[in-house]
Amino acid sequence: MPDPIATLDEMRRILAMLPGPDLAARAATIERERQLTKPAGALGRLETLAEWLASWQGRSPPEVRRPRTIVFAANHGVAARGVSAYPPAVTAQMVANFAAGGAAVNQLCTSVDADLRVYELDLDHPTVDFTTGPAMTAEGCARAMAYGMMAVEPGLDLLALGEMGIGNTTAAAALSLALFGGTGADWAGPGTGVAGSALAAKTAAIDAAVAINGPAGDALETLRRLGGYELAAIAGAVMAARLARIPVVLDGFAATAAAAVLFAADRNALDHCVVGHCSAEPGHRRLLDRIGKQPLLDLGMRLGEGSGATLAIAVVKAAAACHAGMATFAEAGVSGPG
Amino acid sequence: MPDPIATLDEMRRILAMLPGPDLAARAATIERERQLTKPAGALGRLETLAEWLASWQGRSPPEVRRPRTIVFAANHGVAARGVSAYPPAVTAQMVANFAAGGAAVNQLCTSVDADLRVYELDLDHPTVDFTTGPAMTAEGCARAMAYGMMAVEPGLDLLALGEMGIGNTTAAAALSLALFGGTGADWAGPGTGVAGSALAAKTAAIDAAVAINGPAGDALETLRRLGGYELAAIAGAVMAARLARIPVVLDGFAATAAAAVLFAADRNALDHCVVGHCSAEPGHRRLLDRIGKQPLLDLGMRLGEGSGATLAIAVVKAAAACHAGMATFAEAGVSGPG
Repeated sequence: MPDPIATLDEMRRILAMLPGPDLAARAATIERERQLTKPAGALGRLETLAEWLASWQGRSPPEVRRPRTIVFAANHGVAARGVSAYPPAVTAQMVANFAAGGAAVNQLCTSVDADLRVYELDLDHPTVDFTTGPAMTAEGCARAMAYGMMAVEPGLDLLALGEMGIGNTTAAAALSLALFGGTGADWAGPGTGVAGSALAAKTAAIDAAVAINGPAGDALETLRRLGGYELAAIAGAVMAARLARIPVVLDGFAATAAAAVLFAADRNALDHCVVGHCSAEPGHRRLLDRIGKQPLLDLGMRLGEGSGATLAIAVVKAAAACHAGMATFAEAGVSGPG
Repeated sequence: MPDPIATLDEMRRILAMLPGPDLAARAATIERERQLTKPAGALGRLETLAEWLASWQGRSPPEVRRPRTIVFAANHGVAARGVSAYPPAVTAQMVANFAAGGAAVNQLCTSVDADLRVYELDLDHPTVDFTTGPAMTAEGCARAMAYGMMAVEPGLDLLALGEMGIGNTTAAAALSLALFGGTGADWAGPGTGVAGSALAAKTAAIDAAVAINGPAGDALETLRRLGGYELAAIAGAVMAARLARIPVVLDGFAATAAAAVLFAADRNALDHCVVGHCSAEPGHRRLLDRIGKQPLLDLGMRLGEGSGATLAIAVVKAAAACHAGMATFAEAGVSGPG
């Protein structure tokens, strides 16, 4: 992938012109749903997912035949502060594991028949430790966002977004704190499994990062100061998917925090996104409340790497399959109520 | 399928000799899980599902390559009391819809790559209206259980169980009330969509059924008096699956109530079962609390016909795929914690 050139102001301009839902496709889907051989509403969330897919794919019936999971990987300067149970070298090792087919997300992609792309963002050059100042330059942040945008291939019909980056639940917590308020302790969690004094150090790092990076005044500037390259790439991919009419499934705490940057800038920026699952990382549920999203799955997963979002593709595919494939009452000769 | 001959006493004998879990397969699965490239516990429920599959399939790693959904269909005398929003003729019409591939469960089976079998139990002869006396004769109940047992083909590795039967949430509520106590109002719900005076009539029918059929003294006798043919078949299929080492995914309120009959007889009788989803039918959550089961999905579905259980096959398959396919830390050269 060539090195994209972009500025944060360009990203702000794109964010201000995101397209809305296709209301005609939505109305056609609601009309068809009403006629399918089941009591009204009996498929619950699968029905609203079909409407949502149609609204953002811009077609009725919606289809999920080309789902893809993208995992963005990057390293974080703050990892040197011992905020993770694993050393930063694990980011690159896990990228190799993704390439070799050995990680959870590989098995999950096979299981739901999605393809997988992994993009690494200069793993040898982590962001600046944001307890000492901004994580990224404006150029670096914008470039990572543009990189994320370029990773979104037109023609996909569903995109699951995940991440790999030792230290990135610390960044997600710092972002969430700066965007939505509270204290570091509200947003800190075990991540890969820290507890006790390590969790206290992580919490202190989150509070210190937000204090030293001050009020940023703007959501993308907050992303620059407290995010990371893979998180910026996710934000870019979410925007590009909106432009390309590809509905998005977000993964856990880190991926949702990245997307929440866009929500902080525009309350409708994530309308084309669902959240695949609620992570066991405690900040995730709090964040979902703030952005008004109800997750599809709640299975106690807390792995990242797109795992929960990928598994949730099964639910979205099922919604599309039911909507498109079911017979109507008239077609099947089934009596209606009464 | 030939007409099976059986007695309820034979069913009681089988229920008393159900095999336990394979502890060696379970231990091997836990040992492998510990070595896979993820933080310990990070796959949450997927990890415990892999252990559960191994325990009840009797092999490690467990596999889900031949999942099947079975839907049993029957009619209920109590349906004449207006307890459903749909006429009893819809049971047979929906069986025809299943055969033609037009129902939700057909699309869901395709979506999760499970096959589907639908067995109807003498739709032209509903059970007796149980507000006037026992729903089934002992012979009829035992025959339906045996029919359900015979439907379980050895060699399957996962079985989702569902039902179709206008009036059967009334039967499920009556069974639940008799087995677990409370009042008719605790267990009555909209089913296909009744409300107001129709819901009041349904609630009254549930209370009347339990009152007139008295304390039955024994779980299978309760099933005979307050169940239905498809519910008895599900109970039989759950037992047969245990004997054949096939883990089971239960569907919503009616299917779970049928299985709960076995739980009432033996607290370990459903250890080889998970519940695929929590139905929007309010009695289901209450019933899940009583039998100590946490559902895999909670998507507001309330359709029956095995729909929620079938969708949950995707989760169980994913658990098996992750466990079997992931690399270990040693294989992948990924650093451990610390």
